[in-house]
Amino acid sequence: MIIVMKQGSTEADVREVVMLVEKMGYQSHLSTGVERTIIGVIGHKDKSPIQAFASLDTVESVIPIIKPFKLSSIEMKPERTVIDVDGVAFGAEKITVIAGPCSVESEDQIIRIARHVKEAGAQMLRGGAYKPRTSPYSFQGLEEEGLRFLRNAKQETGLRTVTEIVAIGDMDILAEYVDMVQIGARNCQNFALLKAVGQSKMPVLLKRGMSTTIKEFLQAAEYILSEGNPNVVLCERGIRTFEDATRNTLDLSAVALLKTWSHLPVVADPSHGTGIRELVTPMCRAAVAAGADGLTVEVHDRPEEAYSDGPQSLKPADFAACLTETAKIAAAMGRSM
Amino acid sequence: MIIVMKQGSTEADVREVVMLVEKMGYQSHLSTGVERTIIGVIGHKDKSPIQAFASLDTVESVIPIIKPFKLSSIEMKPERTVIDVDGVAFGAEKITVIAGPCSVESEDQIIRIARHVKEAGAQMLRGGAYKPRTSPYSFQGLEEEGLRFLRNAKQETGLRTVTEIVAIGDMDILAEYVDMVQIGARNCQNFALLKAVGQSKMPVLLKRGMSTTIKEFLQAAEYILSEGNPNVVLCERGIRTFEDATRNTLDLSAVALLKTWSHLPVVADPSHGTGIRELVTPMCRAAVAAGADGLTVEVHDRPEEAYSDGPQSLKPADFAACLTETAKIAAAMGRSM
Amino acid sequence: MIIVMKQGSTEADVREVVMLVEKMGYQSHLSTGVERTIIGVIGHKDKSPIQAFASLDTVESVIPIIKPFKLSSIEMKPERTVIDVDGVAFGAEKITVIAGPCSVESEDQIIRIARHVKEAGAQMLRGGAYKPRTSPYSFQGLEEEGLRFLRNAKQETGLRTVTEIVAIGDMDILAEYVDMVQIGARNCQNFALLKAVGQSKMPVLLKRGMSTTIKEFLQAAEYILSEGNPNVVLCERGIRTFEDATRNTLDLSAVALLKTWSHLPVVADPSHGTGIRELVTPMCRAAVAAGADGLTVEVHDRPEEAYSDGPQSLKPADFAACLTETAKIAAAMGRSM
Amino acid sequence: MIIVMKQGSTEADVREVVMLVEKMGYQSHLSTGVERTIIGVIGHKDKSPIQAFASLDTVESVIPIIKPFKLSSIEMKPERTVIDVDGVAFGAEKITVIAGPCSVESEDQIIRIARHVKEAGAQMLRGGAYKPRTSPYSFQGLEEEGLRFLRNAKQETGLRTVTEIVAIGDMDILAEYVDMVQIGARNCQNFALLKAVGQSKMPVLLKRGMSTTIKEFLQAAEYILSEGNPNVVLCERGIRTFEDATRNTLDLSAVALLKTWSHLPVVADPSHGTGIRELVTPMCRAAVAAGADGLTVEVHDRPEEAYSDGPQSLKPADFAACLTETAKIAAAMGRSM
Repeated sequence: MIIVMKQGSTEADVREVVMLVEKMGYQSHLSTGVERTIIGVIGHKDKSPIQAFASLDTVESVIPIIKPFKLSSIEMKPERTVIDVDGVAFGAEKITVIAGPCSVESEDQIIRIARHVKEAGAQMLRGGAYKPRTSPYSFQGLEEEGLRFLRNAKQETGLRTVTEIVAIGDMDILAEYVDMVQIGARNCQNFALLKAVGQSKMPVLLKRGMSTTIKEFLQAAEYILSEGNPNVVLCERGIRTFEDATRNTLDLSAVALLKTWSHLPVVADPSHGTGIRELVTPMCRAAVAAGADGLTVEVHDRPEEAYSDGPQSLKPADFAACLTETAKIAAAMGRSM
Repeated sequence: MIIVMKQGSTEADVREVVMLVEKMGYQSHLSTGVERTIIGVIGHKDKSPIQAFASLDTVESVIPIIKPFKLSSIEMKPERTVIDVDGVAFGAEKITVIAGPCSVESEDQIIRIARHVKEAGAQMLRGGAYKPRTSPYSFQGLEEEGLRFLRNAKQETGLRTVTEIVAIGDMDILAEYVDMVQIGARNCQNFALLKAVGQSKMPVLLKRGMSTTIKEFLQAAEYILSEGNPNVVLCERGIRTFEDATRNTLDLSAVALLKTWSHLPVVADPSHGTGIRELVTPMCRAAVAAGADGLTVEVHDRPEEAYSDGPQSLKPADFAACLTETAKIAAAMGRSM
Repeated sequence: MIIVMKQGSTEADVREVVMLVEKMGYQSHLSTGVERTIIGVIGHKDKSPIQAFASLDTVESVIPIIKPFKLSSIEMKPERTVIDVDGVAFGAEKITVIAGPCSVESEDQIIRIARHVKEAGAQMLRGGAYKPRTSPYSFQGLEEEGLRFLRNAKQETGLRTVTEIVAIGDMDILAEYVDMVQIGARNCQNFALLKAVGQSKMPVLLKRGMSTTIKEFLQAAEYILSEGNPNVVLCERGIRTFEDATRNTLDLSAVALLKTWSHLPVVADPSHGTGIRELVTPMCRAAVAAGADGLTVEVHDRPEEAYSDGPQSLKPADFAACLTETAKIAAAMGRSM
Repeated sequence: MIIVMKQGSTEADVREVVMLVEKMGYQSHLSTGVERTIIGVIGHKDKSPIQAFASLDTVESVIPIIKPFKLSSIEMKPERTVIDVDGVAFGAEKITVIAGPCSVESEDQIIRIARHVKEAGAQMLRGGAYKPRTSPYSFQGLEEEGLRFLRNAKQETGLRTVTEIVAIGDMDILAEYVDMVQIGARNCQNFALLKAVGQSKMPVLLKRGMSTTIKEFLQAAEYILSEGNPNVVLCERGIRTFEDATRNTLDLSAVALLKTWSHLPVVADPSHGTGIRELVTPMCRAAVAAGADGLTVEVHDRPEEAYSDGPQSLKPADFAACLTETAKIAAAMGRSM
């Protein structure tokens, strides 16, 4: 950490800050410049409030040097993590594909779509049973009934299942029915929920928040890891920007950067990332080319009747074509699909 | 709702969409333009998935016409709502001032600061007992002990108290100790939590999310209102933008716009909105001039020792000066403080 | 400037960087931390490419310490600058008001509106003759004829005039007809244009770009100042964010921050900042309360016939009411209007 | 265009708007809904100020239906445009690669780097002679001398050349020395400059502005096309968002979307798009997988001595490796490199 003194601060001012720094158990190194004096602060204690130095009248700013995440960092664990979801791996040589509708709407619907996506090559089935909807007047999900339909779809097709968790109290019931829980973008910094899933051992698909920086995203993962659950898959799903032609801006640089900063597997969600059906296939290809370990794609056989997210859902035939095209990119990357 | 057909769509395409619209119980009005045909859709049913029309291959886009909130809208309730927090009013003629430290750090600290802010003119005391921190390694709050210190501070000073809720399970204990619960920016779209506070009758200070649009913000309020709790105070606390000289970008247009769209009281948080102590007073003045009904300000008597948010906290003397200056603006607005 | 070495860099790596730093004429100060070594770099030469150190394989990052603007900074010139525009002052005790239509549409129109805004209390008349329009198919302005109408409006009313410059070649003709040139948001980082207006002595109203940071904005001003023209008035006019209920997000914190970082006068443009007529008056009040030295407001007596920006234009009577309300805030700030 | 009347507007209000619409030469279609009346407006005249309807007190909003670009749209010209730059094609089967340093620093430097990038497989050489720098105190380019060095580099290597234009007056001299002009991000909406390059026939590399929407970007291209110059290559180079781990957010969805909306070739700039050397290769791969027709990459053989942009420049060996990897993706896309 570096403390930058204000222009015009006196030697006494500097001495006072140095004393405070050392009183807190750090060492300090002084650099007296032409216009500014800076104080390097050495030593680290996890929870210390060193940012508080910025409160001193004589201090201009405090600049952190060390990245604010540990367990998720590649320095801490240089070998890549492979996460097992009932036999399906994330982070291995093979690109993992999650597919399915936005919401579970009926048993018939989810089993029908599960068959389609299985046939096209997906390994996992997605479908929301508890839906975090912007409006309280929108469809909120089938809840436990939806979970049961998901489990039945697994029995019919062998696809592993993932569904979103929206409240801590639902953890047990989700563990009973599905193989992986998803933390949605709006709950990416719901720290109480992160801690709760951290206390289980269930695999977690952690979606980046709409305005969560990459560093904050890894700190969100850190909440889960630090509670003892190492099974975190990161998911880039688009960030909120000024651009309104697409629903979000899919940040594929984040995929590439996460792969250099962290050992955790990274998947991309081109459906929510773009919100436009025609862009899903190009962005699946691009995500794999950027280094993604997996994809999550919304598929619906009757999108015009979907309760939510119809416009961004692929139809089964288009999804099959998407995977065929993306598989060529995977092969060019030395991976399979 | 308006459905815009793709360029080149045939009469048969249009007829098919019209049939679907009418099958769903709506009326349709056709406008055939030079380049595009548009279909006006009339009639409204709350939960219908009309957005799904955007999934049809022949449809270019679906444009909603009606604002997506109801109970919070000024059309629904033209007279302004005044919310009572144990005798302190939000939305009345008098500007309501909430002040206090970011976190409750000790009984001595919170009582000391409570006395300062009471003397300067605040009516309510803030202080976090359960802290939503970006890093799991940062100070997480004193929890129930912190709540007890807040209650003692109320007994000492008479200030009403507000603290943040981060998990549904904490609702009962918060209700026991404090007068108002705060939903923080990161939980603004934690719909499970919104429903939970909606099922109580406790006054709620609902902070806008970092990337929540004004419409989404009112829909978040709608979650609380539609569960039966009318006691919602909206709080603009800065949005996340590209600008990095300030911690967030305090969106005072949102304050003015919320006052024209909604009957709910609106307060502003210049401390989190700017993250810079020197900007708190000018932005308190500006918020009141924009029409805010209240302010929430971080105050700490020893900011350099604060566990969090020291750099944006005012010292007691500066806070008193801030209120003196802001009171002049309030008077110019025909309000008191 | 501070150079942060990568984790795991050797003593030899550090020595090599230090040698490079010193070869370039700087002094270096070393701080060897537990996880990182940092090198403070002291001494400053204006055009040196020290950022290039970030290119070294052993270096993690290079952190600048000094603010990147000089002539516009308050450290360089602690007394506030007052800019004279043919007898009208910006930055003095009195709030300066610029008003008028988006575009000059006809001689009758501009003189008619000039009389209205003069009567309401404006000191300057705005109106575009060369319009920077997003689409080439939109109205592009009356060009020299528009300038002539502006000059006639000045003769009729005494109002000083300001109009936008969009090309270097227009500098001479603008100087002949108007009192002040405006650099629009889209040209805020058109450095060739900035240099050209810097080489004249004409007062300049420099608008912040839609995605220009506050630091970059002052560096844009620095282009004009460093060419020898000290007559720069800064104008906050809203930045581009995810929020789409307003045309832009008017950043009033920027007004307050610019007043602490710079000695230059600052005005605000609530018309472009919000794009919504109903928000103009509240944001005029708020801007003055935040410390703005002036306002620029779009006024049109027949906004429904305006060639551009009708929806955000005030009608004359509303403009007069706006100034009456804002004057109360100015008085509360100890200023006149 | 659709006019949405305010809730509560009377029949007389609606009649008045309809009369105005028809007076302007449009046809209108009425849809009277439960809560709102909407008026469809049919017929189109290029420069008409129909947005002005939003100014009427009885109108809530005006919604445009037709995309605001014409000559660049795929509806206007369904076959893809191939642009010839002295024998090098953009938009053909082969991916076009532009490479070189940020700035031309010396004759030796540019020829040295030209040889490196030629050997690695680039077809065009980039290098700034007139630099648009954020600070007036940064290196501003070698100007005409730099152009001469670029021409010499072409003579030595056969690489076609592209350099940035920053002022209208430089058009002739650029045409003399280089094969293609670049409009930089900061000048993307410098409409006077767009018109000037539109009046020549020189190929133009048009970079997207930092906060330019995709629609605005195509309207910027429209300025060039509508002046008679059809030789426009679009370049996605990253947009400005809240994310600060990367210099910009490279928006590859924009690449895919531009290819569906427009017939113009699209290239991507991963160097400016990310600002991080390690991310350039993954994002080159991803851009080609998203459908880009070309790439522009910053290469420097001594980045630590570069006058600008060293940290994002690839060294020649890394650039060669980048192209080898990217060529595999191109092959998977059925294209060559």
